[in-house]
Amino acid sequence: MAQTMKAAIFIEPGRIILGEKPVPDVGPLDALIRITTTTICGTDIHILKGEYPVASGLTIGHEPVGVIEKLGSAVQGYHEGQRVIAGAITPSGYSNASLSGCGAQCGGAHGHGWKPLGGWRFGNTIDGAQAEYLLVPDAMANLAPIPDGLSDEQVLMCPDILSTGFSGAESGRIRIGDTVAVFAQGPIGLCATAGARLMGAARIIAVESLPERAEIACAMGADHVVDFSKVDPVDEIRRITDGRGVDVAIEALGLQETFEAALRVLRPGGTLSSLGVYSSDLRIPLDAFSAGLGDNRIVTTLCPGGKERMRRLMEIIASGRVDTGSLVTHRFGLDDIETAYDLFGHQRDGVLKVAIHP
Amino acid sequence: MAQTMKAAIFIEPGRIILGEKPVPDVGPLDALIRITTTTICGTDIHILKGEYPVASGLTIGHEPVGVIEKLGSAVQGYHEGQRVIAGAITPSGYSNASLSGCGAQCGGAHGHGWKPLGGWRFGNTIDGAQAEYLLVPDAMANLAPIPDGLSDEQVLMCPDILSTGFSGAESGRIRIGDTVAVFAQGPIGLCATAGARLMGAARIIAVESLPERAEIACAMGADHVVDFSKVDPVDEIRRITDGRGVDVAIEALGLQETFEAALRVLRPGGTLSSLGVYSSDLRIPLDAFSAGLGDNRIVTTLCPGGKERMRRLMEIIASGRVDTGSLVTHRFGLDDIETAYDLFGHQRDGVLKVAIHP
Amino acid sequence: MAQTMKAAIFIEPGRIILGEKPVPDVGPLDALIRITTTTICGTDIHILKGEYPVASGLTIGHEPVGVIEKLGSAVQGYHEGQRVIAGAITPSGYSNASLSGCGAQCGGAHGHGWKPLGGWRFGNTIDGAQAEYLLVPDAMANLAPIPDGLSDEQVLMCPDILSTGFSGAESGRIRIGDTVAVFAQGPIGLCATAGARLMGAARIIAVESLPERAEIACAMGADHVVDFSKVDPVDEIRRITDGRGVDVAIEALGLQETFEAALRVLRPGGTLSSLGVYSSDLRIPLDAFSAGLGDNRIVTTLCPGGKERMRRLMEIIASGRVDTGSLVTHRFGLDDIETAYDLFGHQRDGVLKVAIHP
Amino acid sequence: MAQTMKAAIFIEPGRIILGEKPVPDVGPLDALIRITTTTICGTDIHILKGEYPVASGLTIGHEPVGVIEKLGSAVQGYHEGQRVIAGAITPSGYSNASLSGCGAQCGGAHGHGWKPLGGWRFGNTIDGAQAEYLLVPDAMANLAPIPDGLSDEQVLMCPDILSTGFSGAESGRIRIGDTVAVFAQGPIGLCATAGARLMGAARIIAVESLPERAEIACAMGADHVVDFSKVDPVDEIRRITDGRGVDVAIEALGLQETFEAALRVLRPGGTLSSLGVYSSDLRIPLDAFSAGLGDNRIVTTLCPGGKERMRRLMEIIASGRVDTGSLVTHRFGLDDIETAYDLFGHQRDGVLKVAIHP
Repeated sequence: MAQTMKAAIFIEPGRIILGEKPVPDVGPLDALIRITTTTICGTDIHILKGEYPVASGLTIGHEPVGVIEKLGSAVQGYHEGQRVIAGAITPSGYSNASLSGCGAQCGGAHGHGWKPLGGWRFGNTIDGAQAEYLLVPDAMANLAPIPDGLSDEQVLMCPDILSTGFSGAESGRIRIGDTVAVFAQGPIGLCATAGARLMGAARIIAVESLPERAEIACAMGADHVVDFSKVDPVDEIRRITDGRGVDVAIEALGLQETFEAALRVLRPGGTLSSLGVYSSDLRIPLDAFSAGLGDNRIVTTLCPGGKERMRRLMEIIASGRVDTGSLVTHRFGLDDIETAYDLFGHQRDGVLKVAIHP
Repeated sequence: MAQTMKAAIFIEPGRIILGEKPVPDVGPLDALIRITTTTICGTDIHILKGEYPVASGLTIGHEPVGVIEKLGSAVQGYHEGQRVIAGAITPSGYSNASLSGCGAQCGGAHGHGWKPLGGWRFGNTIDGAQAEYLLVPDAMANLAPIPDGLSDEQVLMCPDILSTGFSGAESGRIRIGDTVAVFAQGPIGLCATAGARLMGAARIIAVESLPERAEIACAMGADHVVDFSKVDPVDEIRRITDGRGVDVAIEALGLQETFEAALRVLRPGGTLSSLGVYSSDLRIPLDAFSAGLGDNRIVTTLCPGGKERMRRLMEIIASGRVDTGSLVTHRFGLDDIETAYDLFGHQRDGVLKVAIHP
Repeated sequence: MAQTMKAAIFIEPGRIILGEKPVPDVGPLDALIRITTTTICGTDIHILKGEYPVASGLTIGHEPVGVIEKLGSAVQGYHEGQRVIAGAITPSGYSNASLSGCGAQCGGAHGHGWKPLGGWRFGNTIDGAQAEYLLVPDAMANLAPIPDGLSDEQVLMCPDILSTGFSGAESGRIRIGDTVAVFAQGPIGLCATAGARLMGAARIIAVESLPERAEIACAMGADHVVDFSKVDPVDEIRRITDGRGVDVAIEALGLQETFEAALRVLRPGGTLSSLGVYSSDLRIPLDAFSAGLGDNRIVTTLCPGGKERMRRLMEIIASGRVDTGSLVTHRFGLDDIETAYDLFGHQRDGVLKVAIHP
Repeated sequence: MAQTMKAAIFIEPGRIILGEKPVPDVGPLDALIRITTTTICGTDIHILKGEYPVASGLTIGHEPVGVIEKLGSAVQGYHEGQRVIAGAITPSGYSNASLSGCGAQCGGAHGHGWKPLGGWRFGNTIDGAQAEYLLVPDAMANLAPIPDGLSDEQVLMCPDILSTGFSGAESGRIRIGDTVAVFAQGPIGLCATAGARLMGAARIIAVESLPERAEIACAMGADHVVDFSKVDPVDEIRRITDGRGVDVAIEALGLQETFEAALRVLRPGGTLSSLGVYSSDLRIPLDAFSAGLGDNRIVTTLCPGGKERMRRLMEIIASGRVDTGSLVTHRFGLDDIETAYDLFGHQRDGVLKVAIHP
C-alpha cells in the first residue's frame, strides 16, 4: 500500500484543492477504506464558500463507497476486500446519544454525552471521503456491506442524500393517505419525495421550477409539480387541496421563504419536517403559526447514519422500490475533482449529483 | 319511496335468504342510504355457518356503497342524492372509545364506554348492507362522500377489506426497509400486502398456494411467494431472509397454524400483526416466544372505520397507488344473492370478491 | 326555569360587563348546563384587552362546572340533574379532525374538515361559561360526569388549565428519567410542571420569579426553581444540567424571550413543547436551532377537550396524584365578575385563579 | 491485584458453589470491574434449578455494582477507580439490533445481526457478576458512572429489576390517567408498579397475597391491592373498574394463570405488557382475545440495558422519585453466597432481594 494519497483538501474559503496526504494510521476501532466512488454534497459547497467553517487542511466529503483495506485490531465481523459503505454520519454506537437512538447528535471525542451535529465527522471534524483512502471511526457501528449485485453508483446516494431525504418523510410521520408537499426538488428533495411515496402518501405535491427536476420528481412519486416561478406555491397548494392544506410539508432547501411557505400550507395539526441547512435566523409569522395554538409540529432531522440504517437503505435499492441512479448526471476521476466542484458549485449543465471515481 | 325493501336475512345457521322488510325509519342522527353496490365478506360466511352468532331476522352485510336517500333531522353537512360509503365499522364519534381513537371498540347503546367489537354494528347488531336500503347510525361520523370519478366498484373494498388489510401493516408499524411476511392472500391478505408495500417494506413475502392469488399478490407488491403446500413456510422464510427472520409478520387467515408460523418467522424484537378471526383458543409455543423475553409484540386490529378513514382510503384509490378493482371476480343482482352466497361460501370458480348490485 | 340569565358579555376592547341574555334554546345535539362554578382564564384577559378579537355581545368563558338542566332531543346517556364538566375545547366527535384525534382543530359549523382552533367554541365563536346557563354543543362528545366525592373547585381546572398543562408534557413526549424545564409558573406552567412529574421526569427545573408561585411549583414537582430576575435562566439551566441541556423544555408564557430561552436550553435532539399564546412573530436564532440540523422538535398544543379527556383528568384528581385546589386563590359571585376581572387582569393580591360561583 | 478470585459457579442443576477462578484478561473493548455489591435474581434460581440451561463452570449473576479495576486498551472516557454499574443486559452498541434500539436482542459473537436474548451475556453466555471481579464487554456502551451521593445499595436494582419493571410500564405505553393492573408484587412487579406510577397512571391495582409485599406495593404507588388467595382477581378488578377493565395489565410472574388473568382484565383496545419468564407454552383463550378482533396488544420486553438506560435510572433514584432501598431485606458476604441462594431460592424469611458484598 502507498504511504501517501490524493485528497480534496479545504484550504480557505473559495479554495478546495486536490492535494497529497499521508494514508492514515488505523486505530483499534477504525477501518481503512479504499474509496472506489464518492460524490460532492451541497454541504461541501457551503464549506467551499466559507458558509460552514471547517479547519484548513481538512479532507472534504462524507459519502463513501469503497473496499476495506485494513481493519483495526479490535474490529471483528468484517474482512479485508469487502465492499462497504458508511453513512455520512458515523454514530459511535456507545455514546449516550447513540444509545438513545440519536447518533447524529453523538458527542465528544470519547463518544460520551451529546453534541450538536456530533455524529457528523467525515469532512467536518475528521478527514473525509474525497480521497483515495478514508479512515472510518467506530467501524463496527458504521461499515455496511454492499449486497451482491449492487453497483457503486446504485448505493452512492445511501450515505447522505437518500438517508436524509427519507428522514424528512419519516420525521414527518407520514401515514397512509396523507397529502404531502415537498419544497425544492434538488437531490435531497427528490429523495424526500421518494420517501413520501414509500410511506404511503396519497398525494405528493413537489415545488420546483426546473423542468428536468420536475420530471424526476414525478418519476420519484410526485402527483403534482408546482412551479413557484409561475404561481404562488402557497395559493396553489391550497387550491390543489381544496383549501384543506397538507398533512406534512417537507422543507428541502434551507431558506426563510420555503420554510415559511411550508408552514403556511399545513393543515391545522400538520407537521413541517425541515431538512434544509439554514444560514440565517428564521421567522415564524404569527398567523402561519396560529399564535402557537395550531397543534403544529416543526421537526428537524440530521441525516441518520450507522450500518443498520445503511443496510435498510440498500435493501430498498436492491428491491427496486427506488432508483437513485438517475441522480448521477456527471462522472469525474478524483484528479478532476476541482473541475467537479466548479461544475457542481455553479449548478452548471443540469447537474444533480456527480460521481467521483478515485 | 317504497315502504318495503328486499334484504339478505339471516334465518338460522346454514340459511340466509332474500326477504322483504320495511324500509327503516330515520332517527335524528341517522341517514338512510340507497345501496347501489355491496359485497359479501368472509365474516358473513362465518355468520351463515353459525360460527359467529347473530339474531335471527337480521339483515347481513357491512360494506355499503350508495346514495343518500334521507337525512336525520340533526344531520348537517350532507345532501340527499350524494354518493357515499360508510365503513364496516361505524364509530359513534362521541363514545369514550371513539374519543380515544379506538372507535372499533365503541361501546353501548348510547355510545358511552367501551365494548369489544362494539363499533361493528352493520349486519352484527343492527341491520346491514345487503339490502336495498341501509340505515347508517351516527351519520355525521360515518358518511364519506365518494370523490368524483371513482366508480362504485373502485371504492367497494374501502369499507372493510382495504381498511382491514392496511391496518395490518399500520398496526405492525412497518418502517421503510422492513422485511414483511403476509400469511394468506385472500382479499384481506392481498390488501395487507398492498399496505406493506405502501408503507415502505423493502421485501414482502406472501404465503399462498393458489396461483391466481399469488399472481395478484405480486401485483400488489409481494417480492416472493411461498407456496405452503410445497415447502414449509417457516423454513422457507428463514432461508429467504438468510436466517434473520422478518420484522413484521401479518396473519390474515385466522388459524393456529398460520398464527404460530407468523410467530416463528419473526426476528427477535419483531411484531406479529394479527388480522384473522380465530375460532378456537390459540397456543403460543414457548420457544417461538423466547419464553417471553424476545421483545416481541402481538397486535390485533379490528377494521378501522369512520368517515375520515374512508376519505383517506378513497384518496389512495383515487391516486392510483392501489387498485382493488381486480379483486371483484363476480357480479350479481341482489335478487341473486343466495347464489352469490353459495359461490362465495364454497370459494368456487376462483372467486375473490363478488359485487352485489341491488 | 327563568327565561333570562346573567352573563359576562364582551362589549368592546377594555369592556366586559355583567349583562342579561335570554337562556338559550336547546337543539337536538345540545345540552343546557346550569353553571355552578366557573373561572377566568388568561385568554379571557387577552379578549378583554382586545388582543384576541371576538364578536361584541359574546358571553365569555370556557371553563364550565355545572348541572344538566336540559338535554337535546337526540342526546342519550345522561340525565337532568347530573353534575358535569365540559372541556374548554368541544370537539364535535364527528368532524374529520375529531376522527383523526385532533378535535381541537375541528372544523366548520357542520363539523366537517379542519379549522385552526375550530374546537375552541365557548367564549370564542359561541356564548361561553361565565353565565348562569351554558349551551354545550355536541353534548354526547363533551359532557363528562363528575365522579362522586369531587367538589366543583377540585375539578374546576380540568376544562382548560390542567388539560393544557398536561398536554405540554404529553406533546413533549416526556419519558422516565428525562430532565425538563418549564418556563413560567402561572396556572398553566404549574400544571405543566405537575404533568412533567406525572410522566416520570427525573429532574424538573421551573423558571419563575414570584416566590409564592415558586413554592407551588415545588409542591407540584419541581426540583429546582430558577429565578430569571436574578440569573440568566439559560446559563443557570446549563449549569444545573452540567452543560448537557434538557430533554424537553415547556414554554408556558407566550413571549419571544421564553420561546428562545426554551430553545437554547435543549440538548441536541430535544423537544420544545410550546403552550403559550403568542402575540407577535417568533424568531428562531440560527445558532439555537443548530442551523436546522439539531434533530430538534418544536411542538404546539391547543388544550385537548372532549369527555374522555375530562374523565381521565378527573381520575387523576380523584386519585390525589395532583391537587389543583391550591390554585384557587379568590372566590366571587357572578354578580361580582367585573371585580374579579379587575383583580385577575391586573394580577393583584397574588391571584392565581379565581372561582366564580353563579 | 490477585491472580485468582472467588466466584459463584454453576456446576449442575441444583448446584451453584463458591469456587475459585482466574481473574479474567482484559481485551481492548473490555473493562474489569471489582464488584463491591451484587445480588441474586429470580432468573438465577431458574438456572440453579436447571430450568434455564447454562454451561457448567459459568459464573452466575448479572447485577453488578463496582469499581473500575482495569480498562481495555481501546476504552476511552473512564478512569480506574471510578464507581460504576452495568446493566444486566450489555448491548454492544454496534450490532444491528443495538443500532435499531433493541440491544437486548443483540446478536452474535461479533455483535452483528440479531439473536434472541443475545444482549443478555452476564451469567448466561459469559461469566457473571457474583464474583470478586467481572469482565464487562463493550465497556464504552455499558459502564455507567454512579452519581456522587448514591450508595451501592441504592443503585443495586438498576441493572435488572428496576430496568425490567419500568420497561413493563413503558412497553405498555401507559398514559396519564390510565388504569393499570400489575400481577404479582415480587421485586420486578414492585418496580413495575413504581413505573406505572411514574408514568402517570391514575389508578394502579396490584395483585398480591403476601401482606408485606402488598404494603411495599402501596408505598410504590398502588391504589388497590387484590389478594388473589381470597378473591378472583379478574372479577375483583372488573368490579373495581366498574366493569370497564384496565388500559394496561402488566404480567410480572410468568405463569399461564397470571398471563390469562392479565388478558381477561383488559378493556377492549388494552395492552398486556408481559415481563414474566415463562416455562411452558401459553394459551390464549378465544373469548379473552375477542377472537382476535379486540384491538389488543401483547408486548414482551427483556430488561433494557446500556449505560444511557442506567444513567436515566440512577437519575430517578437520585431524584428520590423511587426508593428501591426497601427491597433489600438481607445482606451477605460473597463467602456466604450459598446460604444466600438457599434463603432466596426458598423465599424464606420474607426475603425480597439480598445484597451480596464481596
